Amino acid sequence: MKNIQLIISYRGTNYCGWQVQPNGLSIQEVITKAISELTGEAVNLTGSGRTDAGVHALGQHANFFTAATIPPEQWYRALNTRLPADIRVISSRAGKLDFHSRYHAKGKSYLYKMLTSSVASPFLADLAFYVPRTLDWAVMEEAATSFLGEHDFTAFMASGSSIKTTVRTITEISFTNKDNLWEITFTGNGFLYNMVRIIVGTLYEVGYGRIKSQDIKAIIKGKDRSMAGITAPAHGLYLKEVFY
Amino acid sequence: MKNIQLIISYRGTNYCGWQVQPNGLSIQEVITKAISELTGEAVNLTGSGRTDAGVHALGQHANFFTAATIPPEQWYRALNTRLPADIRVISSRAGKLDFHSRYHAKGKSYLYKMLTSSVASPFLADLAFYVPRTLDWAVMEEAATSFLGEHDFTAFMASGSSIKTTVRTITEISFTNKDNLWEITFTGNGFLYNMVRIIVGTLYEVGYGRIKSQDIKAIIKGKDRSMAGITAPAHGLYLKEVFY
Repeated sequence: MKNIQLIISYRGTNYCGWQVQPNGLSIQEVITKAISELTGEAVNLTGSGRTDAGVHALGQHANFFTAATIPPEQWYRALNTRLPADIRVISSRAGKLDFHSRYHAKGKSYLYKMLTSSVASPFLADLAFYVPRTLDWAVMEEAATSFLGEHDFTAFMASGSSIKTTVRTITEISFTNKDNLWEITFTGNGFLYNMVRIIVGTLYEVGYGRIKSQDIKAIIKGKDRSMAGITAPAHGLYLKEVFY
Repeated sequence: MKNIQLIISYRGTNYCGWQVQPNGLSIQEVITKAISELTGEAVNLTGSGRTDAGVHALGQHANFFTAATIPPEQWYRALNTRLPADIRVISSRAGKLDFHSRYHAKGKSYLYKMLTSSVASPFLADLAFYVPRTLDWAVMEEAATSFLGEHDFTAFMASGSSIKTTVRTITEISFTNKDNLWEITFTGNGFLYNMVRIIVGTLYEVGYGRIKSQDIKAIIKGKDRSMAGITAPAHGLYLKEVFY
């Protein structure tokens, strides 16, 4: 028995998210089916965590157990011949037998893309949050520093989540801009449900003046979701990397 | 009566091309309908030239006549509210009454995108020609210089085209590469039907050794389509700019 580790990239537009759902096609389901077609086995594909409908991935991690003789380093090629073009396995290898993609994840990076050009791009319709207004990015970058470090991020979690602890540590929030396509990179030891999207939505509201940069620390301390900003749309979000 | 000039960008994936066709939805048709909805007029939208099914545009030009009172510089906004997200009008203005997008075009630029990474990208499936083999780009760049200048490009035209002259002048063929995404830019006074795609297909065959760089000049002189390379797929091609 081998424990095969995959790194996967996908365009989330046509899926109901990573996780198998009763209604709608999930990425987990499509990959699981491709594995089963190759091996005849019923496998459990464990991801590093869910991504929502419309969210993309550059480097999602997942693992599964198989008795098949396919060489571990060839799994990515074998799977790509059976996967749709909007899901690609980037690499594959044999992991330790006790390796678990979710439990052993030590941290993650997410990317959020926002397009601020005066006209939207026909090539980024499902791939970036289009914001046809002027935002004050200097103030947004300043506001972002308030999120760095260890905090209870209850105010930045979708209501209804059940979780052991709401304390997380963010180690990086960085900004780049090329041709009005802004990319905000978040790195941390973990993120609550919708946390990146609510932080982005809050920074966005800082950018046009509805939330003040100096109020961010109080909003974090207040632990009240209603004080934070909007949940930025799913289609701007990319799971970039998972750290082990 | 005003002559409105538009610059248009589109993702060609979901269309049968620029030109109205009996079967399939064309970009020209979609924009014409949006104009008619705004004005109640039946308009003729003249493009700088056709683009094939699946071909994209960064800066297609088109013009139409209208008696509507919409300010010329506001046309792009008005149209974008009625167009699908994969077609965007970038700018609009009033042109001279005798301006014609096709007759007056003095030259064009095209971009061709080729992805040579070991795994395809789920984000570029319809947006670049994926080539999972090693190409000799230095030799391809050398071969490209043979196309520069004025030539009879009969060997690089889809058969069945009827056209007054097959002589065209190419002033630029330049290459860039970022993360295995190659972009080849072509500028010239005009391009025959499928000419850019056949030149790219020929360079591609030079890149893996099926056609020799030093044979390009003879292939041009031979005026025989069958001596040139394949027609590279439509989805790698972008109409970049039209010059007047």
